[in-house]
Amino acid sequence: MSRFWSKVVHDLTPYTPGEQPKIANLIKLNTNECPYPPSESVLAAIRAAASGDLRLYPDPDSTALRQAIADYYGIGRDHVFAGNGSDEILAFAFQALLNHDGPLVYPDITYSFYPVYSQLNQIRTELLPLDDDFTLDLTRVPAHAGAIIFPNPNAPTGKCVALGDIAALCERMPDRVIVVDEAYVDFGAETAVSLVKNYPNLLVVQTFSKSRALAGLRVGFAIGQPELLAGLERVKNSFNSYPVDRLASAGAIAAMEDRAGFEHDRQRIMTSRTWVNDQLSALGFDVVPSTANFVFARHPQRDAGELALALRAKAIIVRHFRLPRIDQHLRITIGTEAECTALIEALKEILA
Amino acid sequence: MSRFWSKVVHDLTPYTPGEQPKIANLIKLNTNECPYPPSESVLAAIRAAASGDLRLYPDPDSTALRQAIADYYGIGRDHVFAGNGSDEILAFAFQALLNHDGPLVYPDITYSFYPVYSQLNQIRTELLPLDDDFTLDLTRVPAHAGAIIFPNPNAPTGKCVALGDIAALCERMPDRVIVVDEAYVDFGAETAVSLVKNYPNLLVVQTFSKSRALAGLRVGFAIGQPELLAGLERVKNSFNSYPVDRLASAGAIAAMEDRAGFEHDRQRIMTSRTWVNDQLSALGFDVVPSTANFVFARHPQRDAGELALALRAKAIIVRHFRLPRIDQHLRITIGTEAECTALIEALKEILA
Repeated sequence: MSRFWSKVVHDLTPYTPGEQPKIANLIKLNTNECPYPPSESVLAAIRAAASGDLRLYPDPDSTALRQAIADYYGIGRDHVFAGNGSDEILAFAFQALLNHDGPLVYPDITYSFYPVYSQLNQIRTELLPLDDDFTLDLTRVPAHAGAIIFPNPNAPTGKCVALGDIAALCERMPDRVIVVDEAYVDFGAETAVSLVKNYPNLLVVQTFSKSRALAGLRVGFAIGQPELLAGLERVKNSFNSYPVDRLASAGAIAAMEDRAGFEHDRQRIMTSRTWVNDQLSALGFDVVPSTANFVFARHPQRDAGELALALRAKAIIVRHFRLPRIDQHLRITIGTEAECTALIEALKEILA
Repeated sequence: MSRFWSKVVHDLTPYTPGEQPKIANLIKLNTNECPYPPSESVLAAIRAAASGDLRLYPDPDSTALRQAIADYYGIGRDHVFAGNGSDEILAFAFQALLNHDGPLVYPDITYSFYPVYSQLNQIRTELLPLDDDFTLDLTRVPAHAGAIIFPNPNAPTGKCVALGDIAALCERMPDRVIVVDEAYVDFGAETAVSLVKNYPNLLVVQTFSKSRALAGLRVGFAIGQPELLAGLERVKNSFNSYPVDRLASAGAIAAMEDRAGFEHDRQRIMTSRTWVNDQLSALGFDVVPSTANFVFARHPQRDAGELALALRAKAIIVRHFRLPRIDQHLRITIGTEAECTALIEALKEILA
């Protein structure tokens, strides 16, 4: 507390990101990064952009980056918005599109940044409880909702909803903005990008930090009709006109163009996920069926917090949320094949 | 206007950045970028950071970058905050530190992003008129001010205030946050960093986009006592926990360490500024004494808008603000020696 702080700051409970420990030989399965490096073409594009032109501001409209994303999805560039990580885009969306008279509705178990954004923007919220098996039932979004946001697949559960259910929600609530946060969509869920042309109230948000192996660059994007994007633009241009730097833009463009490398690595991660899933089940874990690059699992006989500590003692970090309904679960990122094996071996020793 | 936009969006008049035209052989003197490229050590550091580690999130606290800045100024790292350009830091400051019961006071002629930030955060403002010669008289900041912000040197005038006047203001208003925006300070004004230890109400904001030749990277920083920085941290961690990417951080650290290159280029720019100033005066311009990397000048017989258009026809872009009191001035960035010469030659032809 400080007399120098604005009122809104006093009440904030900021987001706590997964830790980024500086320990060598750590197996880091706590922040859902991609276990494989970005492709050589991405690194080459960045090195080429490390030129004297860095003295100049980047394109404030990220035209080339938006075009690369538009080309990937076969849509118009005017349907793409780019930002400094999907976190920044979500922050803009909360301010520009999700603050209405009715409450903002999101799942009770979800990305823990949503309540933080809501607090920062003083948005009234209403939690939509997931079913006991963590299913998100969109038919239960209340009619009085002012706007809706949810991740698909959801985090930290990894469960996805079907495209038809999203379309039905857009249809049922045509005057309400619906944001689908697709940070993990490339690992087995279906993107709602194809719905955007039919629903002016739908905004799809994606990131380069997970399936595109570029968390270190901070690039995210949103796809929606120009009417929604104009709201984001207005906030962006009242906040920071140049959110995406020249190097990040160059790397992200190359990543979007490297379709083969992207396809290869995401398939590899999904294969490892199946293996981890089976191994955890064999060890007695209840594993939520995941369509993300992580699994969410609990052991009926072992306390999740103690398991996390025991893994940490073996230099393996996973994520444990001390939150209602999920404090007996662990969220475990799918690592390389070697990391997945090390995880399972460690758990075998701990459970023995 | 859209039914999907939050209320605050409808009233926004976003900032218009100086244009970034994609025309070859243009002489671009409109956005105050550095005319010289970043040093080889900066480019090498970025290339080295273009590695597989880009799959990992950056350090959310920008520890190494903050340390490099702290070392440069001989202060503690806990006195340094880093962000995605000084624009982002200013946006956080408006939200975290400048929204109080009393009005936010800033000069009537100043960085045109301030009214935009104020609108976005719905902050009541009061303009402090500059004197006729564009002097900012800090003794006239009214006692009822809730907070104060001004650039030093001021933009777009280039005029600076003395350090003693800033100290006197901090002293006179110990309960009010005072933000000094030092985007251009390295070109002849004196930084207020040395005052921070005495004044817990003082925040100094700087950027890598001007004197450090890295506008393309988007890195800025603030220096203040931990109490003020904690307010910025809270907003940052409610907005985007990882604002500075790995490549930007690597480049900015190297730039901070390259003291000789920095010193050389800023001296060179100041020398060119003296030359441009003298030449413009000889052509009949009234030139405001500048301590920035631009000059602000008017010609008593020629309309500023027409001059800007005539320069543009010769592929030279300068900045013309259609704003009260300054619509007859041009803001001209100091370019390379060759660009400065081309500017003067072009003006000679236009005025002939």
